[in-house]
Amino acid sequence: MTGNLQSPISNLNVVALAGGVGGAKLAWGLAQLLPPDRLTIIVNTADDFEHLGLHISPDLDTVMYTLAGLANPETGWGIRDESWNMMEMMARYDGPTWFRLGDRDLATHLLRSQWLRAHRAPPGQGFPLTWVTRELSKLLGVRQAILPMTDDPVRTIVHTDEGPLPFQEYFVLWRWQPVVRSIQFKGIESAHPTQDVVSSLREGDLIVFCPSNPFVSLDPILALPAVRRIIAASRAPKVAVTPIVGGRALKGPAAKMMRELGMEVSPVSVARHYQDLLTGFVLDRQDENLKTEIAFDLGIRTLVTDTVMTADADRVRLAREVLEFAARL
Amino acid sequence: MTGNLQSPISNLNVVALAGGVGGAKLAWGLAQLLPPDRLTIIVNTADDFEHLGLHISPDLDTVMYTLAGLANPETGWGIRDESWNMMEMMARYDGPTWFRLGDRDLATHLLRSQWLRAHRAPPGQGFPLTWVTRELSKLLGVRQAILPMTDDPVRTIVHTDEGPLPFQEYFVLWRWQPVVRSIQFKGIESAHPTQDVVSSLREGDLIVFCPSNPFVSLDPILALPAVRRIIAASRAPKVAVTPIVGGRALKGPAAKMMRELGMEVSPVSVARHYQDLLTGFVLDRQDENLKTEIAFDLGIRTLVTDTVMTADADRVRLAREVLEFAARL
Repeated sequence: MTGNLQSPISNLNVVALAGGVGGAKLAWGLAQLLPPDRLTIIVNTADDFEHLGLHISPDLDTVMYTLAGLANPETGWGIRDESWNMMEMMARYDGPTWFRLGDRDLATHLLRSQWLRAHRAPPGQGFPLTWVTRELSKLLGVRQAILPMTDDPVRTIVHTDEGPLPFQEYFVLWRWQPVVRSIQFKGIESAHPTQDVVSSLREGDLIVFCPSNPFVSLDPILALPAVRRIIAASRAPKVAVTPIVGGRALKGPAAKMMRELGMEVSPVSVARHYQDLLTGFVLDRQDENLKTEIAFDLGIRTLVTDTVMTADADRVRLAREVLEFAARL
Repeated sequence: MTGNLQSPISNLNVVALAGGVGGAKLAWGLAQLLPPDRLTIIVNTADDFEHLGLHISPDLDTVMYTLAGLANPETGWGIRDESWNMMEMMARYDGPTWFRLGDRDLATHLLRSQWLRAHRAPPGQGFPLTWVTRELSKLLGVRQAILPMTDDPVRTIVHTDEGPLPFQEYFVLWRWQPVVRSIQFKGIESAHPTQDVVSSLREGDLIVFCPSNPFVSLDPILALPAVRRIIAASRAPKVAVTPIVGGRALKGPAAKMMRELGMEVSPVSVARHYQDLLTGFVLDRQDENLKTEIAFDLGIRTLVTDTVMTADADRVRLAREVLEFAARL
């Protein structure tokens, strides 16, 4: 591989591991540069939950809406030009409104839930989430493969000073204010990555750890024993992009969690967290001084650049830099 | 009882049998005249169906929204100021859009479905539809009792020249164009009216057959053997308001069905259909010439008046005339 990736890129199988908003942004950037059949995004499903009888997959939806060009540019999640009339009526019924379900977004949840349940006699025999995600993506014109990490139920439980909280309750209802003591992925012991996940990782020429929350977005994926083993054994470049910049998380509770879990809030902690799996780490210019610590103490090659993706152009530029960096590893 | 019902009315227990739009209008009229605890509306549930994993009760919703003052004045069904963004997104997914689900309306279906399913282990042990309907009504400020005819599943199958069609497919998807050969209420043999339905009918001082479709709206209620028996045995006045005016149905397929089932399209056919259950029949001025046929041939007392409820005032006036007429029976 060379520094000029224009042509070699199209022969690379790129696999991105992603959670929600941050991961989706980089995945979108990669999607602008790679042929669609060369990009696979493996997405966290431990945030999934049942709400109002619907199966909600927040991270899958964020990635799918983003790649489909439908994402709400203000929030990063949900659908642009969304309306909230179901919620308004739900409030009138004094029903649960803590988890905001947009009217357009509901079509996704209704279809997914019905397909998951379909033919579910005997129980558990509906269409798997992988099939459902492929169908929904295809129908929205997404040509990249968006893969749930597993078709088995895994649920993040955040153990806090307020007690154990299912992830969405911690994240949305409690607005990630309780102090985190530990994080559990319920069901992970009996969960398996899908065959699609296993093949994509085995055939991956580059594995990108998107700038998602390490503890609740990427750790569930990496907690699937087969996934971790395959990534560890892979000879492909394995590059993480920091979600921590200048001592803060770009979005969400990553920095707060880090502190509460007794780590320094720093890209070094992120690099150390993934240490045995990485060959490269992308950190922000604001943290340039930490470069040597990652390079020499952890033995991980580094790229220093602007990692904050504000505009669409930032996403594409960062994606290009990640690809070029990986080509040099 | 006297012609002046102003004061006696408040002591009457009025029970109305209703389907959707037409029934809801008269029920609303009655609700403006009676103390809330004196009016019970027993509603057809044989139109209910499962769609997109939701339990939909079209007639219950029409009656509930109408009494809550939320009904869409244009259509008679659904909620006023409704939006259709879920449907728009569903169309984008190529999902089923033949049954129109408004965004606000979805809150009702989601809550109802969840409550029906709640604690449904073992299967069938959720909250009954009667409980759910009472809760939803109460939350919308409805003070009258809206009672599903049964908590058991009964489903109308319309046998047509296109084959057997579940009611909503016949009604909405096929726009009631296929020729009706017979109508079946699947599950009716093992269905029971609820205790609330039985008590309200037993304690009813007046039973009103609303101007709903006799074959698919009121017949399912009357097909519950206990209901028919109690109404037949009741000494209260039993008054039907015609849904057929001037040889046409006010709304929907009643007239077309009548023809296809080999009846004359006339209020006389309606009166004859309910014959053994009625003591009074309200027909429209347009059909005044049929008055004697109903009165003498069928032995049912008649009231001739304007039965078409265009404005709110029409509903109240017709309701008042029905109450006054009943008082004279």
